[in-house]
Amino acid sequence: MDAPSGAGLEPRDIIHLGDGEVLMLDQTQLPGEVVHRRCVHWEDVVDAIRTMVVRGAPAIGIAGAMGVALAAQHGDHDDPAAHLAEIRRAAAVIRDARPTAVNLMWAVDRQLRIAADHPGPPEALTAALRLFALHLHRDEVLRCRAIGAHGRTIIHRGARILTHCNAGALATGGYGTALGVIRAAHAQDPTVRVVVDETRPLLQGARLTAWELDRDGIPFTLIADNMAAALMAEGRVTHVVVGADRVAANGDVVNKIGTYGLAVLAREHGIPVIVAAPTTTVDLSTPAGADVPVEERHADEVRGVGLFGRPAAAHDAPVANPAFDRTPARLVAAIVTERGVHRPPYDRTLAAAVAAAGTGE
Amino acid sequence: MDAPSGAGLEPRDIIHLGDGEVLMLDQTQLPGEVVHRRCVHWEDVVDAIRTMVVRGAPAIGIAGAMGVALAAQHGDHDDPAAHLAEIRRAAAVIRDARPTAVNLMWAVDRQLRIAADHPGPPEALTAALRLFALHLHRDEVLRCRAIGAHGRTIIHRGARILTHCNAGALATGGYGTALGVIRAAHAQDPTVRVVVDETRPLLQGARLTAWELDRDGIPFTLIADNMAAALMAEGRVTHVVVGADRVAANGDVVNKIGTYGLAVLAREHGIPVIVAAPTTTVDLSTPAGADVPVEERHADEVRGVGLFGRPAAAHDAPVANPAFDRTPARLVAAIVTERGVHRPPYDRTLAAAVAAAGTGE
Repeated sequence: MDAPSGAGLEPRDIIHLGDGEVLMLDQTQLPGEVVHRRCVHWEDVVDAIRTMVVRGAPAIGIAGAMGVALAAQHGDHDDPAAHLAEIRRAAAVIRDARPTAVNLMWAVDRQLRIAADHPGPPEALTAALRLFALHLHRDEVLRCRAIGAHGRTIIHRGARILTHCNAGALATGGYGTALGVIRAAHAQDPTVRVVVDETRPLLQGARLTAWELDRDGIPFTLIADNMAAALMAEGRVTHVVVGADRVAANGDVVNKIGTYGLAVLAREHGIPVIVAAPTTTVDLSTPAGADVPVEERHADEVRGVGLFGRPAAAHDAPVANPAFDRTPARLVAAIVTERGVHRPPYDRTLAAAVAAAGTGE
Repeated sequence: MDAPSGAGLEPRDIIHLGDGEVLMLDQTQLPGEVVHRRCVHWEDVVDAIRTMVVRGAPAIGIAGAMGVALAAQHGDHDDPAAHLAEIRRAAAVIRDARPTAVNLMWAVDRQLRIAADHPGPPEALTAALRLFALHLHRDEVLRCRAIGAHGRTIIHRGARILTHCNAGALATGGYGTALGVIRAAHAQDPTVRVVVDETRPLLQGARLTAWELDRDGIPFTLIADNMAAALMAEGRVTHVVVGADRVAANGDVVNKIGTYGLAVLAREHGIPVIVAAPTTTVDLSTPAGADVPVEERHADEVRGVGLFGRPAAAHDAPVANPAFDRTPARLVAAIVTERGVHRPPYDRTLAAAVAAAGTGE
C-alpha cells in the first residue's frame, strides 16, 4: 500500500490506526485546509462519523472497525469480562453512528464476531481487532482497484462521465469506487473528462471530488446539481458513475440524495447509470431499497449555504434534508464490484458476487 | 395598486420610477437586508439588471422601460435630435443587458416605437416614455393577478406545489406569476403547501421565494435542488408551478436552470408541470426553445457557494454555469397567462392568447 491511491494520497494519509489513536483527514475542512482529526477514544470516532469528518460508506466501515479496536486497546486488560463488555458497548454505539451505510454495521459486526469467538486474553483480542481493522482498510483499497479495473472496461473512448457526491479515495480509504472507475478509465484514455456536480447540501462534489480530480490532473467541469439535465440534453454526458451507501439484494441502490433524480434524467437521455461499490456495500439481508432507513440530517445543512459569504435562507426556515435516496434497480445499467461487472437480474448476479467474495457473512 | 401585492409589499416597494431616479429593492441583498438601490442614470439601470439587483423576466422588462424613461428625462431637452439619439443609444444598451428574457427586449422595443412615432417636443416624449413605464408596471401586476385567478382553477385541494427559483412579487413588480398562482390557490384553500427548491447557483428559492412566502404566512418546506426527485417519489409533490423567462411560439419554455430537469422528473411521477407567465413573456417570433440564447454567467457563481461561511470549490475550478434551460412543450401540462389556462397545441392556443391580449406587437 505504498503507491499513491488517488489524489496523491496514500491510504494512511486518509485514515490511520496508530498506537492508541485514529488519525483521519478531516473532510469537513477540505479543500481549504488539509488537517487531521485525532481520535483518542472510541467516542471521538463516533463523533467523527456523525459529523462527517469521515464519510463514504467504505471509509466509515473502516473507521468503525478502528473505533472498536481503539475501545479494545483502552479497555481494562486486567479484567477480560470488563474488557469484552467495553468492546461490546463501544460497538453498539459506533454501529448506530449513522443509519444508512451498511459498511459500518458490517465492519462492527465482524469485530463483534471476532470478540465473541476469541478465546485469548485481552491483549490477544486487542491485537486481533486491530489486525482486522488494518486488513479491512487494505482490502477496501484493493477492492477499489479491482472495481476500477472492471469498471473501465464498460467506459468507452472519449467518455464524459458525470459523478455525484464523492465516491473517491476519501470515501473509501483510498482510490475510490466511482472515482476508481474514473481513475482507471482516464489512465487508459486521457481524453476522458468528468462532470462533477457540487452535491448539496454538504457539497462533497465541489469540495472533495473536485479536489481529488484536480490533484490527479483529471480534467473536470464543476456544475450545480440542477444543471445535469441541461448538460445531458446537450450531449455533454455519456455515463453516470456513482458509488453507493447500500445496495439491496434486488439491486436497488441507496446513495447520496440526488442520485435517484440523476438516474431518471439519465434514462430520459439514454445514458447508462453505473454503480461502483465493493461487495461490503451489498446487503443481501435487505430485500429492496425501501427497506433501508434514510437519515434525516439537520436543517442547518440546507439553511446554512450562502454565496460569497452571504447567508441564504432564514435561520428558522422549515426544511427537509434527507441524506440519501433510493434508486430502483431498473434504472441501473450495471453494478461494478471487485468481482466484476454485474447486470440484471441483480438478485442473482449480486448474490453470486457476494458469495465469491466471501464478504456476505 | 394600493393593495399589498405579495410579501406585504406594494409594487412601488419593489421598483419605482421617481423624479429622475429609479429605486429598486436590491434582490442581491435579500433576505439579510431590505435595502433599495438608487439608479440615477440609465447606465445604473443596466448595471442593476446585469448584476441581478433586479431579476425576473417581467421585472427586468419594467426596469428596462424605466431605464429608457430615465435616459429621456436626463437627455438634452433643447435639442430634439440629440434627445432622440440619446434615447436610442440607451435603449440599445439596456436591451442587451441580459439576453434570455424576452420582456426586456419587448419593453425596450415598445419604448423605441413610442420614440419613433412621437411627434412632440422632448418634454412630451419624456412624459410619454415615463407613462409607458408606469403603465407597464401596473399592467404586469394586473396580469399576475389574472394569472393567479386562472391558475388556481387547476390546483386541486390540499395541493403540494413545488416551485423553482423566484417567480414572485420580486420577479414581476408585484404578486408574481408562479407565486401568483400559489398565492391565489392558498387564499382559496389554506391547506395548500409549497416546496421551495433553493435554486443554485444564485439561491433565489432560498433567498427570495422563501422570504416572500414567509412574509405572506404561506407554509413551505425548503429543499436543496437535488431533493425534488425523492420528494416526488414519496408523493410529497402534487404540482410543479414555475415562471418563464421566455415562452416560444411552440410552447417550449426557457426558464431558470433546473426547470427542465424538474419537468422530466415530474413526468416520471405523473405530476403536472404548470408554467405561469404573462403574454409579454410569450415570444411568437421565436419558433422553439432551441432558438433562444442561453446566458452563460460567471464561474464564481458556482464556485462561490459555501456552507456555514466556509468556501467550497477552488477559486480556479473549471465550471459550467448556464443560467437557463429549455423545457420542451411536451413536458408542460398547461401554460397560464392573464388570458386563461392554455393547453396543447400551444402554437395555436398561445397565438390566440397573445392576439387577444394585444401584447404581440
